[in-house]
Amino acid sequence: MKIAIAQLNYHIGNFEGNTARMLRAVEETKKHGADIVVFGELATTGYPPRDFLEFRDFIRKANDSLEQLKAASQGIGIIVGSPTINPRIEGKDLFNSVYFFHNGETLHVQHKTLLPTYDIFDEYRYFEPATEHKVVDFMGKKIALTVCEDLWNVGNENPMYTVCPMDLQMVHQPDLMINVSASPFDYKHTQERLDVLKANVDRYKIPLFYSNNVGAQTEVIFDGGSVVFSPDGKVFDEMVYFEEAIGYYELDEVMRGGRQQEQPKDKIRLIHDAILLGLRDYFGKMGLKKAILGLSGGIDSAVTAVMATRALGKENVRVVMMPSEFSSQHSVDDAVALAENLGIQYDIIPIKKPYDAFNDILKGPMEGKPFDVTEENIQARSRAIILMAISNKHGHILLNTTNKSEMAVGYGTLYGDLAGGLSVLADVYKTEVYELTAYINKDEQVIPQNSITKPPSAELRPNQMDSDSLPEYDILDPILRLYIEHRLGPREIIAKGYDEALVRRILRLVNINEFKRHQTAPVIRVSPKAFGVGRRVPIVGKYLS
Amino acid sequence: MKIAIAQLNYHIGNFEGNTARMLRAVEETKKHGADIVVFGELATTGYPPRDFLEFRDFIRKANDSLEQLKAASQGIGIIVGSPTINPRIEGKDLFNSVYFFHNGETLHVQHKTLLPTYDIFDEYRYFEPATEHKVVDFMGKKIALTVCEDLWNVGNENPMYTVCPMDLQMVHQPDLMINVSASPFDYKHTQERLDVLKANVDRYKIPLFYSNNVGAQTEVIFDGGSVVFSPDGKVFDEMVYFEEAIGYYELDEVMRGGRQQEQPKDKIRLIHDAILLGLRDYFGKMGLKKAILGLSGGIDSAVTAVMATRALGKENVRVVMMPSEFSSQHSVDDAVALAENLGIQYDIIPIKKPYDAFNDILKGPMEGKPFDVTEENIQARSRAIILMAISNKHGHILLNTTNKSEMAVGYGTLYGDLAGGLSVLADVYKTEVYELTAYINKDEQVIPQNSITKPPSAELRPNQMDSDSLPEYDILDPILRLYIEHRLGPREIIAKGYDEALVRRILRLVNINEFKRHQTAPVIRVSPKAFGVGRRVPIVGKYLS
Repeated sequence: MKIAIAQLNYHIGNFEGNTARMLRAVEETKKHGADIVVFGELATTGYPPRDFLEFRDFIRKANDSLEQLKAASQGIGIIVGSPTINPRIEGKDLFNSVYFFHNGETLHVQHKTLLPTYDIFDEYRYFEPATEHKVVDFMGKKIALTVCEDLWNVGNENPMYTVCPMDLQMVHQPDLMINVSASPFDYKHTQERLDVLKANVDRYKIPLFYSNNVGAQTEVIFDGGSVVFSPDGKVFDEMVYFEEAIGYYELDEVMRGGRQQEQPKDKIRLIHDAILLGLRDYFGKMGLKKAILGLSGGIDSAVTAVMATRALGKENVRVVMMPSEFSSQHSVDDAVALAENLGIQYDIIPIKKPYDAFNDILKGPMEGKPFDVTEENIQARSRAIILMAISNKHGHILLNTTNKSEMAVGYGTLYGDLAGGLSVLADVYKTEVYELTAYINKDEQVIPQNSITKPPSAELRPNQMDSDSLPEYDILDPILRLYIEHRLGPREIIAKGYDEALVRRILRLVNINEFKRHQTAPVIRVSPKAFGVGRRVPIVGKYLS
Repeated sequence: MKIAIAQLNYHIGNFEGNTARMLRAVEETKKHGADIVVFGELATTGYPPRDFLEFRDFIRKANDSLEQLKAASQGIGIIVGSPTINPRIEGKDLFNSVYFFHNGETLHVQHKTLLPTYDIFDEYRYFEPATEHKVVDFMGKKIALTVCEDLWNVGNENPMYTVCPMDLQMVHQPDLMINVSASPFDYKHTQERLDVLKANVDRYKIPLFYSNNVGAQTEVIFDGGSVVFSPDGKVFDEMVYFEEAIGYYELDEVMRGGRQQEQPKDKIRLIHDAILLGLRDYFGKMGLKKAILGLSGGIDSAVTAVMATRALGKENVRVVMMPSEFSSQHSVDDAVALAENLGIQYDIIPIKKPYDAFNDILKGPMEGKPFDVTEENIQARSRAIILMAISNKHGHILLNTTNKSEMAVGYGTLYGDLAGGLSVLADVYKTEVYELTAYINKDEQVIPQNSITKPPSAELRPNQMDSDSLPEYDILDPILRLYIEHRLGPREIIAKGYDEALVRRILRLVNINEFKRHQTAPVIRVSPKAFGVGRRVPIVGKYLS
């Protein structure tokens, strides 16, 4: 039996596009003599469809796609994820299901049992868990079908569920497991996922064919890396990350084991490639081409410009340098050098005129009060107006260049440098931005050395340095990581040897700045805990604040 | 047995404040001779605590609060909601529980069974459902304790759950039901809630004491309206909406029935009072006092200014008129008349100077292209800079004045008139804003007649009218309501007699403008489906777009 894993990039709600993409893969895999082709989780609708699932019209369209796939299953088994309407009035209205079509018939529908409802996941918002577990007979083999999380109650130290659906399938003595997934990327998840899948194979001693979605859905990146395990618990093949691909596997060969191919898992390289996919799919799926951003001469906007250029092409990236009276000539020079290295269009537009105009008309309400964050914000916001004006006139999308350290402590101006349609680096701590810079510059000096070595500054008042307001990033970032990623409280962080007053100040800054993060762009997610959909905290709260 | 329902306003994460508030109520209810005092759901932490629940430090603080309440239970039964750590490693880490303390002992802990995970609710993100259901013996009575949603699987046409926890408690033959709730307001929910509670009393034929939280938690308003039902299925007493209160009830009298007090439920009055509470608590719980907003002379900003003045006091509200070359003198006059009616501080700051300055420095990148939305946005964004500057200098919070109709179709400028810390009217359709205006003006003409009768206009280009870009609001709003609140697809809406092209255009506008709503302020929620936490749709999607 030859099994094809079709690792495809689905687009949420684009039924026509998703169906056409799968039908093409059906034809191609038939040509290659495949007996089965395996698509992804909720492949008809794209994942995560979120509240679109609450529209019956949306489910009807998904069912139309299923009918087309069923009709195309002459001579090939098609395994595909799609929602199913729950026929009972009790319980949630839908199941998250995997369908098995063959010769125009539905051989089996298996609903998902474990419904991830944590971090970026909201599945129990929509779906009822399965209570029936069957296997499907095909070409003399019994196949256990599961959906993504169904395999995730094995090999965990702190299991989130009280049932284990594969245990329930094992009573039917399946010969192999096939799983359709929408398992998202983060720089730790690629390895964790392999560990969990291996724990399943070690437990059940049968081969596993695991088909994962690929592609970015706004902030969440699905990385592919579909994988086949031999029954001995070894990886037979791990497919490419961040790209569509089709893998073909003879069951007999997989049973014998032997071949072992894994993808490289260097953290910074994964982050780099994930961000490129995040950018490409945001623009591609929105039908957009062109990006704009402000280039300050600092490292964050430099890295953002490089990533945009690599993702979208130099002809589609435009940058603007907007010096104020507090900007150094060095900063403009560094920005120009980068733009010229990248071959992208740039403008230099000093902000003095609108800044003076605002100061002039605001004389009354300012009542002669001294320069403070107000004037800093007027500068940052004047820059946003300039960027948005060019963007509006020419159809660019403004990219936000904030990093995760700044985003965490609220070091940024709402409607100013926090503006933008997509945040490229806001899940990358400042110390990681430097690592990403080194990775970018590994073959040639794309980003000028001066942008890397000079101390970070917002240049919004005379001689300003980030370190005036914030601790050094190599102290700040580990504390932020313990709080945000590891969810430790102040006592536990202080117990690790950090200064108590500093820890309390930083945690307070994170919490009181939730109102800013509420109003910022979606953030390309690369870490196990990103700002945005996966981190939901109250705005009006008093915890640690 | 005398039962006190303490309908209190909790503050998320403010353990000290919440505990002190409950301890005061314990003392007061003891003085009144109460045998039991009933607080609310997750009263120690405030509801919804969201991802703060993932911090062990947060749970430890909740447990400290419980210890204080337990110690205070000498001579009185205290019923209070708080999270419990799940002792098993399988399943979610917490339960959502109700505790019964008496004489320094824990008489019972009942976990919640039905975990709402829809609209604004995310409970299965954090909590494991109960599997054990017991009653508690107190003063010779058996009491069935439940938490909020546990009563919501009775009397529904489309039940979301497959179990009914009160059925499981009934095997122990309880004499009365006590429920602690965090049931949120919307203008339909006050009645729906009574209907569901009545269905429980009709089914179980025992009295019900239902204690609801009150107070706003950023966007979500808890309206109180705690209620006592006699076993005959009639309301014995419904407590006040939108205010803290303590009600005292003799069980014998409730058993006999007779007294029937319900609160008025006029839609617009409820919306009005809910918004006032939303404003008061946003400012009060954040430790803020002063609001600022732009006053255009139109109806939305006029209503927002009135609501802010009623909620915060005229000394705490400041408005700014910012005419452009396209503003009519009438608009400024109407805005001034309103500010003088309200007795609030105002400034008139024309935006010509910064607008000209931007046009000047942008000449190059604009390449002589004609006036379009770019220039409109520069005006709207210049106003936001002015408002934010005064706000930054003097410590105001900018109130957003957008209505739900505009928010739905994206008729507004990001970082311009969509800016603000809190959206006051963005869950109120334009046609409802007029109803709210009539309610505000019912005793005296607070809002000038001219603001009400003139056709809506953004005044961003010569002779602009909302109706140039949008259908009339009395056509637009019903279509939006069918799509947003009733989740009907285009076919169903068109089948109701609306023009097909218009319906498709409006639904497309709603969907393609999700990126704007993603970046706007929290919206005070008054309808069954508000933008924000209760409505989660993809930004990069292609459904109906």
